[in-house]
Amino acid sequence: MDHIYKKIELVGTAPESIEKAVENALARAAKTIRHLRWFEVVETRGHVEDGKIAHWQVTIKAGFTLDG
Amino acid sequence: MDHIYKKIELVGTAPESIEKAVENALARAAKTIRHLRWFEVVETRGHVEDGKIAHWQVTIKAGFTLDG
Amino acid sequence: MDHIYKKIELVGTAPESIEKAVENALARAAKTIRHLRWFEVVETRGHVEDGKIAHWQVTIKAGFTLDG
Amino acid sequence: MDHIYKKIELVGTAPESIEKAVENALARAAKTIRHLRWFEVVETRGHVEDGKIAHWQVTIKAGFTLDG
Amino acid sequence: MDHIYKKIELVGTAPESIEKAVENALARAAKTIRHLRWFEVVETRGHVEDGKIAHWQVTIKAGFTLDG
Amino acid sequence: MDHIYKKIELVGTAPESIEKAVENALARAAKTIRHLRWFEVVETRGHVEDGKIAHWQVTIKAGFTLDG
Amino acid sequence: MDHIYKKIELVGTAPESIEKAVENALARAAKTIRHLRWFEVVETRGHVEDGKIAHWQVTIKAGFTLDG
Amino acid sequence: MDHIYKKIELVGTAPESIEKAVENALARAAKTIRHLRWFEVVETRGHVEDGKIAHWQVTIKAGFTLDG
Amino acid sequence: MDHIYKKIELVGTAPESIEKAVENALARAAKTIRHLRWFEVVETRGHVEDGKIAHWQVTIKAGFTLDG
Amino acid sequence: MDHIYKKIELVGTAPESIEKAVENALARAAKTIRHLRWFEVVETRGHVEDGKIAHWQVTIKAGFTLDG
Amino acid sequence: MDHIYKKIELVGTAPESIEKAVENALARAAKTIRHLRWFEVVETRGHVEDGKIAHWQVTIKAGFTLDG
Amino acid sequence: MDHIYKKIELVGTAPESIEKAVENALARAAKTIRHLRWFEVVETRGHVEDGKIAHWQVTIKAGFTLDG
Repeated sequence: MDHIYKKIELVGTAPESIEKAVENALARAAKTIRHLRWFEVVETRGHVEDGKIAHWQVTIKAGFTLDG
Repeated sequence: MDHIYKKIELVGTAPESIEKAVENALARAAKTIRHLRWFEVVETRGHVEDGKIAHWQVTIKAGFTLDG
Repeated sequence: MDHIYKKIELVGTAPESIEKAVENALARAAKTIRHLRWFEVVETRGHVEDGKIAHWQVTIKAGFTLDG
Repeated sequence: MDHIYKKIELVGTAPESIEKAVENALARAAKTIRHLRWFEVVETRGHVEDGKIAHWQVTIKAGFTLDG
Repeated sequence: MDHIYKKIELVGTAPESIEKAVENALARAAKTIRHLRWFEVVETRGHVEDGKIAHWQVTIKAGFTLDG
Repeated sequence: MDHIYKKIELVGTAPESIEKAVENALARAAKTIRHLRWFEVVETRGHVEDGKIAHWQVTIKAGFTLDG
Repeated sequence: MDHIYKKIELVGTAPESIEKAVENALARAAKTIRHLRWFEVVETRGHVEDGKIAHWQVTIKAGFTLDG
Repeated sequence: MDHIYKKIELVGTAPESIEKAVENALARAAKTIRHLRWFEVVETRGHVEDGKIAHWQVTIKAGFTLDG
Repeated sequence: MDHIYKKIELVGTAPESIEKAVENALARAAKTIRHLRWFEVVETRGHVEDGKIAHWQVTIKAGFTLDG
Repeated sequence: MDHIYKKIELVGTAPESIEKAVENALARAAKTIRHLRWFEVVETRGHVEDGKIAHWQVTIKAGFTLDG
Repeated sequence: MDHIYKKIELVGTAPESIEKAVENALARAAKTIRHLRWFEVVETRGHVEDGKIAHWQVTIKAGFTLDG
Repeated sequence: MDHIYKKIELVGTAPESIEKAVENALARAAKTIRHLRWFEVVETRGHVEDGKIAHWQVTIKAGFTLDG
């Protein structure tokens, strides 16, 4: 059987790290999407306050299996 | 609290201008999406009839806040 | 009247060919989306088993009309 | 019957706006090309004089039907 | 002797396959251009009708030798 | 004599249009830079409030002559 | 255990189709590389003779597992 | 009032992580620039010594408000 | 008066250097095109024979003024 | 003396972080390549299981000195 | 100690060659910047007069060490 | 018979010119690879000392025939 996937674009944020920002985006997506399989980082940005990184802002594409 | 955003890709059209085509796309999206925050223009095209621009066709990505 | 389109990103797979992988992705999308109009191939990949192509994996963006 | 199109690259200029620069390029092309169908904006630049925009300079690709 | 080539951009269409769409574009170009040498696929798209691929639309750049 | 230019990256904003956002960026740059010659649009974005465009946000590269 | 992969770039050719050109490249690679896993198409070109496609020339990146 | 921003390109380095390299670049920039607002990661590289990462080298664009 | 330009894509070759390959392409174009204004290098390649560069192959886009 | 470098493309994986995935790729490469000098991150992806990041998958290009 | 670098974008021109245009840009930058370390060519263009190259116009990014 | 090619990525350096840097990379590759056919320039950089170009650093992809 041939699988079909859908990819959605999400932006996760976190003060700690790039990894945590991606984790947050996936955790939120997992609330409504069952079969998340992979992600691809498409952009890494961040906000600066008083010369320090206030939070990371990471755009990902997340792929999930569509039920047949 | 860390925000999570989703980005969707839309194509708006309008005979008048690039700005109006983007406006149309956002107005349509706003019917079903509450927290639209920003957009990014990803492609600008148009249709030609009799050597004149019949309408502009502008592809945008629109980002909105996902409720936690 | 100005049309508005939405574009979604899908990955279709098929053992036979690139064309068949796209076809599969569109057939699946057509189950829930009425007015599919066009697609754009954005990535062509595949899985290999025993030195042979097990299946093609083609990422497309598919555009459809949003009802007014 | 299958259509074949040719795409040419043009740079239109205008002091007023991006839209007018594209319009000028298409109007010039329409003098010698009959079946112009669509255009894609590929670059938007401009010249500056005394800190003001002297004219916009917009590069487009314009597609037209080749007679069979 | 140093060769000089010109490259033109064409869009071929065909209901069957990507290959056939390219073939159609080249066949049309060959009517007026003698020394076609190579092509590069730059974009692969298609039109959808009733959830099925109506035709493939493949943009190529075709290179040919300019007579000295 | 050979000219040397420097390019800087600016983001202009304006509620009205893309053109006005670029104009604003150039007007601000012209306060401290004398020989602005050209600009290139590198990104077009915008902020959305209540489903409407609050302001356009256009990133440009602006080139100016360096005194010899 | 964490896997490490190497990616190599190959150009396969075939008169019949894009798929066959990729197949040929992988078949040749499989002679000396055991654990080929996936490929990504990075460029599709072709040679033209007498206005017809003489052969397709497809560049792929092929990934394989490095033994630990 | 319309804001204008300037973007500069910096390369930060750090032995520990990508995040620390960005932090270092911003800390240095903050010595002379008051209103840093955001950054975008444009390239991630690193130097290797004895098969280990000696330091990360991350290129960012940093945006700051220009005083009116 | 607003100028309109057309851009064509050419590949020049020369055994000596990148510069000479561009020069050859422009010299050939100048035989039939009067108002060549500028060029942009889009690709630099070359052919190798016996481990040495046999000739450089440089793709340019050349812009020229269209008569009004 | 002029140095010559070769660049190879590797994909490292690790459950912990992007940095660890790169480290793993370099450690594996260092088993057979002596003079690794630098790396460039070209793609960052990951696999998801149960809505959590199972492992990061980072593609790098690694450069090393070729002995003269 | 961790180094921080700044990158600026310059356009050098010269009638002779690409290399000379880069050299001119760097020589001008060196008048006011002490620790120039490297450059990257980002665009190569040129002006044409009477079918001949009047001058090369090369855009570079130049990196220099910021004092700590 | 269908040819298969492999492409490798090399960085050549030379104080004199871009052309010489490519030549050096190919000369080194030709020591161990028999059937080098073509190359593509993918990046042009350089090192600066005392405001002058110390050496050019050119990244190429070099293609060669794989024996059947």
